[in-house]
Amino acid sequence: MKTDYFSQRSSIREYDNKSIPESLIRDIIERAMRAPTCGNMQLYSVIITRDPNKKAKLSEQHFNQPAATNSDLILTICADFNRFSRWCEISGATPGYSNFHSFITALTDAVILAQQIVTIAEMEGLGTCYLGTVTYNADAISNLLELPSLVVPVASISIGYPKNIPAQVERLPIEAILHNEIYRKDSDEDIRRLYKAKEEFPENIEYVKINSKPSLASIFTDIRYPKEMNELISQKFLSLLNEKDFLPH
Amino acid sequence: MKTDYFSQRSSIREYDNKSIPESLIRDIIERAMRAPTCGNMQLYSVIITRDPNKKAKLSEQHFNQPAATNSDLILTICADFNRFSRWCEISGATPGYSNFHSFITALTDAVILAQQIVTIAEMEGLGTCYLGTVTYNADAISNLLELPSLVVPVASISIGYPKNIPAQVERLPIEAILHNEIYRKDSDEDIRRLYKAKEEFPENIEYVKINSKPSLASIFTDIRYPKEMNELISQKFLSLLNEKDFLPH
Repeated sequence: MKTDYFSQRSSIREYDNKSIPESLIRDIIERAMRAPTCGNMQLYSVIITRDPNKKAKLSEQHFNQPAATNSDLILTICADFNRFSRWCEISGATPGYSNFHSFITALTDAVILAQQIVTIAEMEGLGTCYLGTVTYNADAISNLLELPSLVVPVASISIGYPKNIPAQVERLPIEAILHNEIYRKDSDEDIRRLYKAKEEFPENIEYVKINSKPSLASIFTDIRYPKEMNELISQKFLSLLNEKDFLPH
Repeated sequence: MKTDYFSQRSSIREYDNKSIPESLIRDIIERAMRAPTCGNMQLYSVIITRDPNKKAKLSEQHFNQPAATNSDLILTICADFNRFSRWCEISGATPGYSNFHSFITALTDAVILAQQIVTIAEMEGLGTCYLGTVTYNADAISNLLELPSLVVPVASISIGYPKNIPAQVERLPIEAILHNEIYRKDSDEDIRRLYKAKEEFPENIEYVKINSKPSLASIFTDIRYPKEMNELISQKFLSLLNEKDFLPH
């Protein structure tokens, strides 16, 4: 594998107490807006949270994880069909974006923009971290940021100057994710082989031990991403999509 | 705005008749796998379509758009909780990822990977184009690629060596998408101002004229992304999520 920024990068969860110039953030977002977007509709909005009081309240909804509380700012990237639909209306056209497919389209646009912001910010020497918790409390975050109809938060990114650069964690071998022409049918033995290095990664062995669990997989199913939690978030998130007019009534 | 690859890029729909080395594609995907992923679960798979017969059939599902038919290959990036769930099962853990939230998590992972592939490929001198049609015929694409339970196609990218570099299209001013602390309440007048440059972009004026439409917005609502089509795709896509076990039964 070629050695460059892409092969060497890591997410950053510890930040220096140093402020990012407003002009740099704007420049990063403006360049990121050149990322691909469906039909050039730009179905996204970015909300910057920098004000200490607002940031404390937003961080609460991200369970006060250090990546949120210690960062200089948080960007909340939203799937947004509101602005585009309003433009249609004031132009005398009838928008038809109050449906699930339109949400998926806007979500895709928003995540593409989010990842472009991450890449440009990191190449400018900043550190970033996605806060996966954005969907857990999407309803409360939506209230905090005063999001209107057809606007739903889908990606949160904390940004700051890195305090230190952590060692990279493990990844699966490329064979695990790459398929030629059709989806390959792996045997149980194949799956075991593909996840072997992950299970033998020293930090993962330690993590299993500390938690007294029988396997690394059970760390995910029992502690980090359990079924009951996923089902609860599913219900909450579908309710929010309904409230924001993205599901047919 | 700083001038660099990010500010200058465009999607490419016309390609040279020149093959991309297999090793380059693998290297791009391997570097892209260092992009952020939820809990390091890597909830994605990539299917390469290069075989001419398979590519012709896949292109049909993308309405034979030139970006698909003329490219060297097509990558279909899938939200994939199948591999991870199987690993949990053979490890004696009980996976809980047959729900909507898990689909959104995997979709986000997959789109982040897709955008990282696009960026790395373009920085290597290749041209790329997202085929937004991936969700339109996600069921047929799923059959062609033989996708199992908990695997859904969410991003398709055509790749090849660019035939020429087209001029950049317009984008909204950054003010349209950037909000400070809370979502700004724009007046109709604000929206008109923010979309003015888009409406006055020469190609858009021409497009409205050719189609004898009263406004640019009506090109979107009446021709490109009409309500009835969006609602039909919503139904089809929700059916596929159900069939692939991502919706609670």
